[in-house]
Amino acid sequence: MTQLPDSVSIREVGPRDGLQNEDPIPADAKVRLIDALSATGVRRIEAVSFVHPKAIPQMADADEVWARAQRNENVRYSALVPNTRGAQRALAAGFTEIEVVVSASDTHNRRNVNRSTAESLDDIAGLIALLHGSGAIAEVIISTSFGCPYEGDIDPARVAQIVDRVVADGADRVAFGDTTGMATPRRVRELLTAVRDRQPEIPLLLHFHNTRGTALANILTALEFGITEYDASVAGLGGCPYAPGASGNVATEEVVHMLHDMGIDTGIDLDALLDAAALAEELVGRELPSGVLRAGPRTRLTAS
Amino acid sequence: MTQLPDSVSIREVGPRDGLQNEDPIPADAKVRLIDALSATGVRRIEAVSFVHPKAIPQMADADEVWARAQRNENVRYSALVPNTRGAQRALAAGFTEIEVVVSASDTHNRRNVNRSTAESLDDIAGLIALLHGSGAIAEVIISTSFGCPYEGDIDPARVAQIVDRVVADGADRVAFGDTTGMATPRRVRELLTAVRDRQPEIPLLLHFHNTRGTALANILTALEFGITEYDASVAGLGGCPYAPGASGNVATEEVVHMLHDMGIDTGIDLDALLDAAALAEELVGRELPSGVLRAGPRTRLTAS
Repeated sequence: MTQLPDSVSIREVGPRDGLQNEDPIPADAKVRLIDALSATGVRRIEAVSFVHPKAIPQMADADEVWARAQRNENVRYSALVPNTRGAQRALAAGFTEIEVVVSASDTHNRRNVNRSTAESLDDIAGLIALLHGSGAIAEVIISTSFGCPYEGDIDPARVAQIVDRVVADGADRVAFGDTTGMATPRRVRELLTAVRDRQPEIPLLLHFHNTRGTALANILTALEFGITEYDASVAGLGGCPYAPGASGNVATEEVVHMLHDMGIDTGIDLDALLDAAALAEELVGRELPSGVLRAGPRTRLTAS
Repeated sequence: MTQLPDSVSIREVGPRDGLQNEDPIPADAKVRLIDALSATGVRRIEAVSFVHPKAIPQMADADEVWARAQRNENVRYSALVPNTRGAQRALAAGFTEIEVVVSASDTHNRRNVNRSTAESLDDIAGLIALLHGSGAIAEVIISTSFGCPYEGDIDPARVAQIVDRVVADGADRVAFGDTTGMATPRRVRELLTAVRDRQPEIPLLLHFHNTRGTALANILTALEFGITEYDASVAGLGGCPYAPGASGNVATEEVVHMLHDMGIDTGIDLDALLDAAALAEELVGRELPSGVLRAGPRTRLTAS
């Protein structure tokens, strides 16, 4: 057996990636969710995105939400931005960790932003310079890294070349998005092998969806590669925009539950996280796809 | 990375373990499900159990179902029995692969059959002799092998001792049941290490529930130990008797989908299996917890 990491840094993405894919909820509800998550011991929260309100009405009140949310000094908060305007808003709001996105799939990138992957990479070079000029950390998220719903498999060499490019342009971290849940242990292994051969040093973060049940198996595989940064969404908030009723983001409490039982520290209090997950269900008004929320942790016994 | 097996033998347990934990459906519907599964290429099906109809009304028509089901010569069919009476019925019905059950947890065993684990093991010694006397294969399923909802963690050494006992009594195979979904990669590793140290030869089969999202991660871990026999239930049929709304048996198509992408053969045609999964949903009249059924396999592309 490979030696696994002793601790893992989970970024909670429910308030941004999760809520962006649910029906809109009021700013007050978003603030409650961020505050509840800030109290769980989680070390990183993706709080909001600064996007055009017509494109993503769920995030139209990002400035208000962020102004009202409590700041926990032990939490690093980040925001996602699509372009220069969004980056300027995020910087003005005080964010110092900012994410930009490009899709490894040309088709997917064109459908999202009407530009080729190469054109978006040129834009991102400028965004990284802008963020660095203001002292912020710039993370590049490469979506459809494990497969594209339009193109199918994505060659790991193509993703590795995109990593080379954004690292050359100054990216501080690269995240691989399993946008529609196409990752499997094999795809994780192939991608990490391809990237680590060329970029042994750049911090990597993995973002898995549990659309086809593989999320925890994928994380287990990535742990064997020594990857210690993962996204997860409280209660599995977010759904899957491509398949009604299907699961999207892996539930944070399922990740934490497995890692803690394996002796891997996350800093998170699972009970507090389950309270936040119950709150997330209440706020969006639907049952969310979290097994640990539904059944309780394995340590919660039944009276005999 | 550890070398994984090239092929895996999946036993489809939906018709028995799955349907036993759903509201009763007519014999005709059970026959349709078994026949649909027999046509998928799966090599083993747990078809029925011979239990007391008052205890488990879902299986009251086992004789009729088995008499009417098509026999595919490429499929090995098995039945589960709780006692001598059930074993006699299974043998009379023509089964040559028969499963008996004991719980590793004394509390769980007493609640199920009002006997201690040790008392049940004495019974099982007699059942194995009875089955062998009729030329049948005897498998012992050890439930709560990865944890008990009443007692909590189960010492792997205790499970290994039970394995020693049933192997000494002639068991042809031992299955480890993750009865309420308490298994994690750590528990799988600890149990398999404890058992394989003492019993390197006995065939082992693993039966995971996806109650807390870990089923495929557990299978991945067991593959690294060279385990090649797994139970799974079409569409995730079966639910979780301990937690309303929670997942029970891991969905066969989620297992097959991951294994095939990893280049591990199962003999199963995933499209035919998905047809059987859709039939299972139709027959029980509720949405079942199968991500691959909901979203389709990763190879099913969206028109761009």
